[in-house]
Amino acid sequence: LDVEYEDSLLFSLIDKKGRELAKAYEGRQDLIVVASLVERIPNLAGLARTCEVFKASALTVADKKILEDRQFKLISVTAEQWVPILEVKEGALIRYLERMKDEGYAVLGLEQTANSVAVNNYSFPSRVVLVLGREKDGIPVNLIQTLDACLEIPQLGMIRSLNVHVSGAIAVWEYTKQHLQGGPGL
Amino acid sequence: LDVEYEDSLLFSLIDKKGRELAKAYEGRQDLIVVASLVERIPNLAGLARTCEVFKASALTVADKKILEDRQFKLISVTAEQWVPILEVKEGALIRYLERMKDEGYAVLGLEQTANSVAVNNYSFPSRVVLVLGREKDGIPVNLIQTLDACLEIPQLGMIRSLNVHVSGAIAVWEYTKQHLQGGPGL
Repeated sequence: LDVEYEDSLLFSLIDKKGRELAKAYEGRQDLIVVASLVERIPNLAGLARTCEVFKASALTVADKKILEDRQFKLISVTAEQWVPILEVKEGALIRYLERMKDEGYAVLGLEQTANSVAVNNYSFPSRVVLVLGREKDGIPVNLIQTLDACLEIPQLGMIRSLNVHVSGAIAVWEYTKQHLQGGPGL
Repeated sequence: LDVEYEDSLLFSLIDKKGRELAKAYEGRQDLIVVASLVERIPNLAGLARTCEVFKASALTVADKKILEDRQFKLISVTAEQWVPILEVKEGALIRYLERMKDEGYAVLGLEQTANSVAVNNYSFPSRVVLVLGREKDGIPVNLIQTLDACLEIPQLGMIRSLNVHVSGAIAVWEYTKQHLQGGPGL
């Protein structure tokens, strides 16, 4: 009887955990945020939290060991348990992006270039891979050539640019809003 | 002759600095971000940088001593030299907000409440004071009662909320976009 009781407890726990996981994974947006070029832990942890809030389907990082970092855990507030985090090293990025294109994703970079489209004027397709740049020097030229388009956030001030976590969050927000509301400029 | 030469050099330097300052202050948006409840230095410094990028007319903090903090300087990347930072202590906040109302500002809180309006459905007036909450427990109830309205960012995930810097940045972005484009939902 005791064994049966323990079994039923165990099964109900597994069931509960399964339902929690299913709930966490259901309704994710078809948006993958590529942070494999992002170097600073606070930015990576912040992005994990923001990706979880907006239910991105994955976040890529260059090295999954950061998940064990104390500062990462402190800032991400357990987000990494809910948003799937994939390891894609910098050397494998172009191959990864090409594969995602083959799977029907639009591969977009968030970078100020001569040809960048303002993020609020861009009509996001449903399947998007959003590539973020390095804190100091953005997305390398050879990667820019792999992208389907570059987006930028119109900026008004004297300092060159927004922090990569904040600009990534604004782009994820614009994608989310368009899909909540049904189109760009809404 | 040397004295005259030095004078002319000095005047041209003063003139250059004056033009730089005028450029920094011109075209600021009529948006004041109130971060007097925000406690963590990385969030305050990040907000200074974001307010500078979107040319808010001021950022309030509870204690201007943070401007001397090493971590603040590192994160804000000199933003505090360009965006005016005002000291408004928590005890003086209600008085400050009432005064801004008298001056024709809409005083808005960024907080999830039963009556909050989604930030993308809200039509921002031109003069806005945006109040941000504390990292842990948001905007205190007595302050909520002073506000003209509460805004919120629709969130989809399992973790309760966005980081205060990121949610503030998204609200500042929405305000900016509406004023760049001429209306809400644009």
